[in-house]
Amino acid sequence: MAATDSTIRMYDLAGAEPERRFSPYCWRIRMALAHKGLGVETIPWRYRDKAMIAHSGQDRVPVIEDGRHVVADSWTISNYLEDIYPDRPSLFGGAAGRATARFINSWADTVENRGISTFVALDIVRHLDPSDQEYFRRSRAERFGMTLEQLCANRDARIGGFRQTLEPLRMTLRSQPFLGGAAPLYSDYIVFGGFQWARTISGYVLLEADDPIAAWRERMLDLFGGLARRNPGY
Amino acid sequence: MAATDSTIRMYDLAGAEPERRFSPYCWRIRMALAHKGLGVETIPWRYRDKAMIAHSGQDRVPVIEDGRHVVADSWTISNYLEDIYPDRPSLFGGAAGRATARFINSWADTVENRGISTFVALDIVRHLDPSDQEYFRRSRAERFGMTLEQLCANRDARIGGFRQTLEPLRMTLRSQPFLGGAAPLYSDYIVFGGFQWARTISGYVLLEADDPIAAWRERMLDLFGGLARRNPGY
Repeated sequence: MAATDSTIRMYDLAGAEPERRFSPYCWRIRMALAHKGLGVETIPWRYRDKAMIAHSGQDRVPVIEDGRHVVADSWTISNYLEDIYPDRPSLFGGAAGRATARFINSWADTVENRGISTFVALDIVRHLDPSDQEYFRRSRAERFGMTLEQLCANRDARIGGFRQTLEPLRMTLRSQPFLGGAAPLYSDYIVFGGFQWARTISGYVLLEADDPIAAWRERMLDLFGGLARRNPGY
Repeated sequence: MAATDSTIRMYDLAGAEPERRFSPYCWRIRMALAHKGLGVETIPWRYRDKAMIAHSGQDRVPVIEDGRHVVADSWTISNYLEDIYPDRPSLFGGAAGRATARFINSWADTVENRGISTFVALDIVRHLDPSDQEYFRRSRAERFGMTLEQLCANRDARIGGFRQTLEPLRMTLRSQPFLGGAAPLYSDYIVFGGFQWARTISGYVLLEADDPIAAWRERMLDLFGGLARRNPGY
């Protein structure tokens, strides 16, 4: 069951420009792989390419291939990497850190990313490959029960309320440089994924300049030689 | 700097009935002390008793006295207990667990407890010692910018929205029995404190019966021989 010494391959959501990688969940894993010091070959993937990942048993990215192992879902992948590569830097810092990170994962999925979508989802369309645009509009209208224009209306009137929902993150980052403490852990990559998603496809200003979250985001963009900063973005 | 072998004393917010202990922050520490297997002598404390804790350098409970050490603030106390009693069961499960618990602490303070206050704050008054009631009404009116009656108005119309804000907790507890994983850690005591506060002073039903959070709350009430369940409550 041990991993091979071959490079990990990862299917990574891309826009019309192949280098514009914008999935918050794929970014969690890009950062986790860098944290583990594992090489990765990313494969640009569009929504139309569902057949390309059918062997993962589902139809969403991220999906990684590690030798014979095919693993989907960002939480599952992060746990796989932690368990298969225990001698490399830990993503969770032990069982308690892993259990507690699950709460942050749930918060990011339901509060952070859902909130961010109401500011940037319409901006995504401009960056999608033309063949993906109709699918994206239709599937999101089903998910949200409204058009993207309706979802993203009145952004300036709502941004203060959104910033308020980030208060647990802000309070934590006032007392420590990373969610993981003195150094970043997977919890940081979970939450950073959402901001990197927004930065990649929208110029909308989610954070005030003096927000401690904005300073943390800069620290995250600096990690691993500027891995996330090099990605096309605003 | 080592702790003595004397019993820890804790100033614990009480209602008109001395046994009705209702502070969410004191409950975090009651549970943490039990987790560590440390004996405690609790001292019923009312808002009028600020002089009694002046030696802690501030005017809120919980305050503990452990030999020569006087420690205030629930987060600070939990860290003190972890550091001074490292050979007893860990509250955080390591540095990463401690750092990540800080996020849950921030979430509980700003989302959970702030939310619960808008359902139960008026019910608190009925259980307060008469000498505390005027202070409580005045200080909370200053904090919230409205009367307790206004704060707690239209509960039934708002309860659905409140339950939605608990989604990160609910998602996590669908996949593991405790926030700490297979067994409770301080993160569980942080979040439980809010529900125990509500249970102690209000019959208002915060959770639907089939909510995974309600099942977790029952598990928490069972801990340490039913420590929290024995406290007067609804």
